[in-house]
Amino acid sequence: MSRPPIFITVEGIEGVGKSTHMNFIAERLQARGRSVIQTREPGGTALGEGIRALLLDRAHAGMNADAELLLIFAARAQHVEKVIRPSLAAGNDVLCDRFTDATYAYQGGGRGVGLDRIAVLESFVQRTLRPHLTLLLDAPAGIACARARHRSESDRFEAEDLAFFDRVRAAYLQRSAREPGRFRIVDATQPLDAVRRQIADLVQRMIL
Amino acid sequence: MSRPPIFITVEGIEGVGKSTHMNFIAERLQARGRSVIQTREPGGTALGEGIRALLLDRAHAGMNADAELLLIFAARAQHVEKVIRPSLAAGNDVLCDRFTDATYAYQGGGRGVGLDRIAVLESFVQRTLRPHLTLLLDAPAGIACARARHRSESDRFEAEDLAFFDRVRAAYLQRSAREPGRFRIVDATQPLDAVRRQIADLVQRMIL
Repeated sequence: MSRPPIFITVEGIEGVGKSTHMNFIAERLQARGRSVIQTREPGGTALGEGIRALLLDRAHAGMNADAELLLIFAARAQHVEKVIRPSLAAGNDVLCDRFTDATYAYQGGGRGVGLDRIAVLESFVQRTLRPHLTLLLDAPAGIACARARHRSESDRFEAEDLAFFDRVRAAYLQRSAREPGRFRIVDATQPLDAVRRQIADLVQRMIL
Repeated sequence: MSRPPIFITVEGIEGVGKSTHMNFIAERLQARGRSVIQTREPGGTALGEGIRALLLDRAHAGMNADAELLLIFAARAQHVEKVIRPSLAAGNDVLCDRFTDATYAYQGGGRGVGLDRIAVLESFVQRTLRPHLTLLLDAPAGIACARARHRSESDRFEAEDLAFFDRVRAAYLQRSAREPGRFRIVDATQPLDAVRRQIADLVQRMIL
């Protein structure tokens, strides 16, 4: 008998290879006969992508931290209601590129928003919904950012300095330390093959 | 000695003449030597206008009620922090076309979102900030909507049916009954001159 639908999130700062590994995880799950909905935050719905555009737009450099937080949870409310809950209810695994841990890391760790304020909105929007498994792709901010900078023009988050991403990474690690049952940390500085082997192994154990 | 800065909000359903009367109130205040910042919600900032565009877009007909609520408060957070608080602190009156009473009326009364859920976000975003005076332009939904329909193509809210606006109006009236010290109800079905006289009188007494 196969395991019931799993809600998996993939987390990490810019440049750790989330997109590449997301696809690999989806392939592994599908290879085991599971049906996978791949999605991302902020975004994942038409409304959410509209909100994402506002969030990433460098024209909104003066965005208030609470406004940013509420926008993220507005997109999440739509995403949870229209995509995540129905997909799980229909028997699919949901594989999401960033979720609420990213809010604790970026807005909490990065921007200094109180974690209690984030927790208020987390309960408000998600009620009891939490990921079953969270894969944290971890790398020092210096290494990850150097990779990310090779890409096209940076958005409002990517334009932050190294100290910001250091704080984000530290917040991710703190969260994973507090919830070792849910988090799996993968060292993203390893060669690609080693990362993939580790991920394949984690996914395999998850669905047994 | 003149009264310290006042935060005035103007509320009411579509078609009660808010825009016309907003300008008139601003003129009356300015005629008394007061400096007035006129603004609106959702909107009032570049980010807020971007959020307003998402909220009004009929392409987002399937917007989740919580997502709508969080978007409104995201715009409000930016507006409070960047416009309302600094304007009041600099000694200006602030005259705002809709504020949180509209959220209680539209999302609470209209959409059926729990008032306690709205109150959570009101405290989250505004802390203790509340309007000093709220002018409720009141008219039966049938009359007001007939006026509003003469305008250009309807947005996502204007596209709602009469029963929706009946609920919104009722919620406004309930709020004004609960806070008689802050609310002033103006019967918007009166001839324009009579409405203006009543508003002029209210404004006059407010700033004495």
